[in-house]
Amino acid sequence: MSESDVATVTVSVFYGPVINPKDLNTYEILPQALIAVDPNGTIIWTERDVKPGNLQDYIKERLPEVPAPDGYEISVSLIELDDGEFIIPGFVDTHTHAPQMPNIGSGQQYELLDWLEHVTFPMEARFKDIDFAKKIYPEVVRRFINFGTTTCCYYGTLHLEATKVLADVVTSLGQRALVGKCNMNRNSPEYYCEASTEKSLEDTRKLISYIRSLKTGLVSPVLTPRFAISCTGDLLEGIGKIAEQDKTLAIQTHISENAGEIKFTKELFPDCDTYASVYAKYGLLRERTILAHGVHLEESELKMIKELGAGISHCPTSNFNLRSGMAKVGDMLDRGIKVGLGTDVSGGFSPSMLNAIQNASICSKMIALQSAIEPTNLSFSKSNFSGKQLSIATLLYLATLGGASLCCMEDKIGSFAVRKSFDALIVSVRAETENPSIWSATDGDTKNCQGHDIEKRLDAQLERFLFGGDDRNILKVYVQGKCIGGKAYKPKIDLQTVVTSSTN
Amino acid sequence: MSESDVATVTVSVFYGPVINPKDLNTYEILPQALIAVDPNGTIIWTERDVKPGNLQDYIKERLPEVPAPDGYEISVSLIELDDGEFIIPGFVDTHTHAPQMPNIGSGQQYELLDWLEHVTFPMEARFKDIDFAKKIYPEVVRRFINFGTTTCCYYGTLHLEATKVLADVVTSLGQRALVGKCNMNRNSPEYYCEASTEKSLEDTRKLISYIRSLKTGLVSPVLTPRFAISCTGDLLEGIGKIAEQDKTLAIQTHISENAGEIKFTKELFPDCDTYASVYAKYGLLRERTILAHGVHLEESELKMIKELGAGISHCPTSNFNLRSGMAKVGDMLDRGIKVGLGTDVSGGFSPSMLNAIQNASICSKMIALQSAIEPTNLSFSKSNFSGKQLSIATLLYLATLGGASLCCMEDKIGSFAVRKSFDALIVSVRAETENPSIWSATDGDTKNCQGHDIEKRLDAQLERFLFGGDDRNILKVYVQGKCIGGKAYKPKIDLQTVVTSSTN
Repeated sequence: MSESDVATVTVSVFYGPVINPKDLNTYEILPQALIAVDPNGTIIWTERDVKPGNLQDYIKERLPEVPAPDGYEISVSLIELDDGEFIIPGFVDTHTHAPQMPNIGSGQQYELLDWLEHVTFPMEARFKDIDFAKKIYPEVVRRFINFGTTTCCYYGTLHLEATKVLADVVTSLGQRALVGKCNMNRNSPEYYCEASTEKSLEDTRKLISYIRSLKTGLVSPVLTPRFAISCTGDLLEGIGKIAEQDKTLAIQTHISENAGEIKFTKELFPDCDTYASVYAKYGLLRERTILAHGVHLEESELKMIKELGAGISHCPTSNFNLRSGMAKVGDMLDRGIKVGLGTDVSGGFSPSMLNAIQNASICSKMIALQSAIEPTNLSFSKSNFSGKQLSIATLLYLATLGGASLCCMEDKIGSFAVRKSFDALIVSVRAETENPSIWSATDGDTKNCQGHDIEKRLDAQLERFLFGGDDRNILKVYVQGKCIGGKAYKPKIDLQTVVTSSTN
Repeated sequence: MSESDVATVTVSVFYGPVINPKDLNTYEILPQALIAVDPNGTIIWTERDVKPGNLQDYIKERLPEVPAPDGYEISVSLIELDDGEFIIPGFVDTHTHAPQMPNIGSGQQYELLDWLEHVTFPMEARFKDIDFAKKIYPEVVRRFINFGTTTCCYYGTLHLEATKVLADVVTSLGQRALVGKCNMNRNSPEYYCEASTEKSLEDTRKLISYIRSLKTGLVSPVLTPRFAISCTGDLLEGIGKIAEQDKTLAIQTHISENAGEIKFTKELFPDCDTYASVYAKYGLLRERTILAHGVHLEESELKMIKELGAGISHCPTSNFNLRSGMAKVGDMLDRGIKVGLGTDVSGGFSPSMLNAIQNASICSKMIALQSAIEPTNLSFSKSNFSGKQLSIATLLYLATLGGASLCCMEDKIGSFAVRKSFDALIVSVRAETENPSIWSATDGDTKNCQGHDIEKRLDAQLERFLFGGDDRNILKVYVQGKCIGGKAYKPKIDLQTVVTSSTN
């Protein structure tokens, strides 16, 4: 038996600075941490502080903890970070539209309803052509991955087949995702509207079965009534029943994005006094419901969302771009409502969660400024977030653990802990990334201008990454322990080939 | 005499799509334009529409128009653009701080006055060390150039010598610029404050002489009283006198950025009833005055600024980031006040004018939304811009011709016309630029989703560039006809070498 024939279990051990979100106000900085990941991508042990000189000994000591079948050898793959690099959890994009990526950066002159008519629906309709879907989706998912999105909540189009392709692509490329096809059987253009309630529900059930048959452990189906305007009451009712029968299913939809949308919704459902109560009426406001936007939510709606355990995907770039408004995220957080961030491509003009973070900061600052001028009466006694700008810790939380929590995946992803999955980014703010919006640590200034100890350096590097970073600073993207993207990742397979083979 | 010895005059002829700002509401799209640039960088002729088949003949026909000395041969360097590329005027960044670039993306937790104390002044003070300036400034200027800023209004530090270095660097790298040293003789930390009014004025005069002695034709001195808070009345008076004696000198300063700053200013100058009247009192509000921010300007200040012919550098990223507020640019434009855009590094977290454009759009949209809710009484009868979002045409204008006009350079730069200088960008939205925020023209979708004719394609490409572009999409940066930067530009000389040689 040659050496290469020995059966091995490979453990990946990451060594370097780790920035680990803890809660809305805190992240840990561990400048010399170790994270060991088993072959299934699960974190098996971590160590907060190991000096370089003790590294090899330390790893050897802890190898017996690796669960390996008898007769298997344990091989260690050590990934050591350079100065100017650090590890953070992967981003969770809690709201985006895969078929709208080809429109990215277009149509900024419109508000929501006109934008849907003139920009969005014409593009989405093209996904009726499955070859078009096979051509476009690999590039779409590849881009989200390379921007550091390890978990993504995707809206597909209304088409069953194209949305299967999207699920195939996500599966092939190894991203963690929720994938849903839009339910929309009214108030949509003739050329892009489902034929009937029955067909919409049938396709929804078929997609759920299909995605579950993929058995990836990473991709799950999600019920996706587009928004109340585009669904008849009986369609919402049917979707609500599917959700009731299977409480593991997530639901995603839009809420209270735009004044015109809210008005129209109330006209369509005259027996419901608020937008949220439409969804509640049909059993669509639940613990696993991800509500995009929530810009203009009323008091009673906020209470209802909190009570029913649903949460909000805050999409500030989109809300700015489509002139929807500024969601009061601080208020939601003070109420204990779950909040994540979303890029909302292409209402948002960037597929990058970094842009969502920057605009969430801006949104909170402008609300803080207004609050200082016009103090509002808050309905709760203690305000930690309302009327204040979001801190770096809060922003990082929302983009990672907050998003995970919104997707009910906080026991699995969003931060680093034993038994969680290793969904992570290796970030670099080094000069060779060639992103001119970051003044690099390796330029030798960070230390002096930001503080004298390593934690402060890492604080500064994190802030610079969040406010100036782009895809060039994301070297490696890991999902479930496997490297699936990033600037330093070389895919072994051609994108188009993967998709064609998996869907034929 | 060998062929290579023949004296030649080289004319650069650019052929391809040109997007040319005309006014606040309009840009021209010329899909097959020709621009001929003489060896001095001046546009000698243009042609709006030349078919590819007629190109060679057309150029030959117009060669006699090239002013060449007797005995010189005319050589033509033809630069033809590819599909997915277009030419726009270079960006004019009307407000930024060169020494703050090393802090980019830092200190977002602070408002203005605290940010100056904790982030800005400690960094600026380091430029007392001329070697530090020589190390940092080349990289700073290189970054601005590669982001497409062909003309830049730079604040240096208070140091004469370091600011000379900045002027040297800008000269070496070929950017068009205003360069000023900050006047600040009070309300600044002990370690970073000018010793006296006399010294401040003396150094100012020395810098003016020095920059003029460089005789580049591209770099000019600019009077730079930091802001009213940091200058005693007699210092402002002295600077006003210099301005009065030499009316060709530009002036740059800050105004009405932040509530705390305004309050403190009024306390310092109790005889002035507004912030603007402080500058007016000392003769610093003039046609060539560039006022950064103007977020909270009062009615009387707006009128005064208009009457005296000064203008505003709108810095939306900074105003968001430092929680200053949202400047009412539409209102200013309706009043006929000159407006340009500024990155305000590092109050702004991006050195890219594209980011300034995106945030100017966002700022205008949020103001439009508020105006729809709370209509204000406007003091002028016709509102073209107030309470409305800025269009793509307006945004492009502000970033180019508007900025040029604010700097009183609109007869020279900001758009393409015969006798103007060729300050331009070759932009690419092609896939090989590898910017994942742009869905490329070469992906074959732009045509179908945006319209059927070439002008609409170019409209779409421009919008995608403005909202998703970064330095990777800027292939070449021309100032005065010379390529000085961009992704496709390979500098012939090492940055550090240039600076060292020119300042030794």
